[in-house]
Amino acid sequence: MKILRTIKAEDMEDIATGGAILGTGGGGDPYIGKLMAQEAIRKHGPVNLIDIDELADDALVVPVAMMGAPTVMTEKLPQGDELINAFRALEQLLGRKIDAVLCGEAGGVNSTTPFVVAAMTGLPLVDGDGMGRAYPELQMVTFTMHGVSATPMVLCDDKGNSLVLNTVSNAWTERLARAATVEMGGSALLAFYSMTGAVAKKAIVRGTLTLCAQLGETLRQAKASHVDPVNAVVDKLGARVIFHGRVKDIDRRTVGGFARGSARFDGVEEWKGHTFKLDFQNEFLMAERDGEILVTTPDLITVLEAESGRPVTADALRYGLRLIALALPSNPQWQNPAGIALVGPRYFGYDVDYRNYFEA
Amino acid sequence: MKILRTIKAEDMEDIATGGAILGTGGGGDPYIGKLMAQEAIRKHGPVNLIDIDELADDALVVPVAMMGAPTVMTEKLPQGDELINAFRALEQLLGRKIDAVLCGEAGGVNSTTPFVVAAMTGLPLVDGDGMGRAYPELQMVTFTMHGVSATPMVLCDDKGNSLVLNTVSNAWTERLARAATVEMGGSALLAFYSMTGAVAKKAIVRGTLTLCAQLGETLRQAKASHVDPVNAVVDKLGARVIFHGRVKDIDRRTVGGFARGSARFDGVEEWKGHTFKLDFQNEFLMAERDGEILVTTPDLITVLEAESGRPVTADALRYGLRLIALALPSNPQWQNPAGIALVGPRYFGYDVDYRNYFEA
Repeated sequence: MKILRTIKAEDMEDIATGGAILGTGGGGDPYIGKLMAQEAIRKHGPVNLIDIDELADDALVVPVAMMGAPTVMTEKLPQGDELINAFRALEQLLGRKIDAVLCGEAGGVNSTTPFVVAAMTGLPLVDGDGMGRAYPELQMVTFTMHGVSATPMVLCDDKGNSLVLNTVSNAWTERLARAATVEMGGSALLAFYSMTGAVAKKAIVRGTLTLCAQLGETLRQAKASHVDPVNAVVDKLGARVIFHGRVKDIDRRTVGGFARGSARFDGVEEWKGHTFKLDFQNEFLMAERDGEILVTTPDLITVLEAESGRPVTADALRYGLRLIALALPSNPQWQNPAGIALVGPRYFGYDVDYRNYFEA
Repeated sequence: MKILRTIKAEDMEDIATGGAILGTGGGGDPYIGKLMAQEAIRKHGPVNLIDIDELADDALVVPVAMMGAPTVMTEKLPQGDELINAFRALEQLLGRKIDAVLCGEAGGVNSTTPFVVAAMTGLPLVDGDGMGRAYPELQMVTFTMHGVSATPMVLCDDKGNSLVLNTVSNAWTERLARAATVEMGGSALLAFYSMTGAVAKKAIVRGTLTLCAQLGETLRQAKASHVDPVNAVVDKLGARVIFHGRVKDIDRRTVGGFARGSARFDGVEEWKGHTFKLDFQNEFLMAERDGEILVTTPDLITVLEAESGRPVTADALRYGLRLIALALPSNPQWQNPAGIALVGPRYFGYDVDYRNYFEA
């Protein structure tokens, strides 16, 4: 089996940074996942990242993820035991050995959590994920569009409680797992969406963990060589700068466990005299400039600190921060009608049709 | 195996009436459970009620129950499929044949639901339950005091979703199952608390289904022979009349999915000039007379219509209804410190110690 990259503990820094960029303002802070992954790699050895084509068609691939608020686990989960518990319990339930670990969500905390399981089990980690970004609900994965069931799913908490879910749809998995996660204290660990190598080859968004690593590397090297970090990221991603401005006003409320709201910006430099607005529901989902809708989900909207290029989450938006907003093309799978139904602006309650920003 | 009683469809009327009396104002209306049981018995044949001592010590016994609001299922559950699904799924999980069905809660709807599974499977139903009455939370069973784990538990809804829970305590089972039940639309079916015959012989409250049948029979015969129905029930139960009055005032609110509140009564006839107050949280949990606490959980408080002897739930209390309140001794298992910790007045937030009304 050809190894794409061997990921050591120190490599997790870049991956977490890249995961925060693809987190598009949400997805949870990768910090705790990074710490868990570093701990696991130091203890059990490095992780082998492989291309999905290295797997046999009948191989068994299982994604793992954290659900809810990772901050809740900061002090409770130094070893990743619950992730491995969920993974092993699902393996036992399926009655066959799992051949590779997969990432469910390359943006936010879940860009790093699969490394914990890969390190602890010695299994290869597939370079790819089910979103190519972050989204707030667990049915929002390309896997759903390929008919992959989220269940049987195992959900574990840090107390020793576990659930096995079998549901009639991935939307029902989300509802029941969300309710359990809230009850468990706001955070839980999942093993779900088991699939064969053949299905995974079609269903995943490829190369996203390598992209995370490269994005982190790009920012780090720009800083070291005094190159403008935002420009470096823009070039690397094929992104477009959609605004440069200061946070003027933030309206934030918690609805159904999600951080919803919007932030308004006043332009600076090349955007002086213009206004900008970001709507978020955990992730940044819609951008308006001068009162006109510019970019919506599934296209990616990510926000960087103008000076450092450091990715900024919706949670971290503060009055006066000088930020640069970027738009990135989403994976083409999201742009078909099934993808738009799952994650388009109307699903999130915005009364607007999706228009691909990069084709407009 | 000696059969105590063979329960035919028409016998379910008496059992449901008795179940409503032991429901102590809560436990859900046995009506829907009765219909399900009658349907199952007509289709699959009568149910054999057995004494627990008929079972071998290594026999496997499994209780089944409905969780949440049975009214939600009135139109959705004519066949009891979800109950049998939960039961069969747990059997498969345990990897061995279940030998008998058990009743979790002899008061309210769950006095009748186990008959559905017994009829559909042809398995005997044990004469007894885990409460000898009704209580609102699933850890509130004598089984808990004997170290029986509620999990592995299977929880099914009417849509085809199912959950397997493994928890660190029965209180955690309650929390997670409650959250799932709410999300599933307010009602779910459970198979849980699997135990051996040897454990069940110690852990159950014996003879409660026969008691339900006898209570229903007593009321029915009193009506037929123009005997005072309330007196007939009082004699049958060894109960004490604690008040006779009219509902003056009801304060009802829904807190955390439970119907909480209190009702005030003005005395009539022998209690003229006296006042009475009932506090309920689904079930009637505390009775005060003339401003002094008289009876508290775990002692049973049940309320009958003065004329007909028909049991009245907390939901059905209406201004002007003439009612007779009874106190019944609880099973001695509830009166030890572990029982009081589980279901005593302080657990429900009443700032008072339990004092056995029948020893006072």
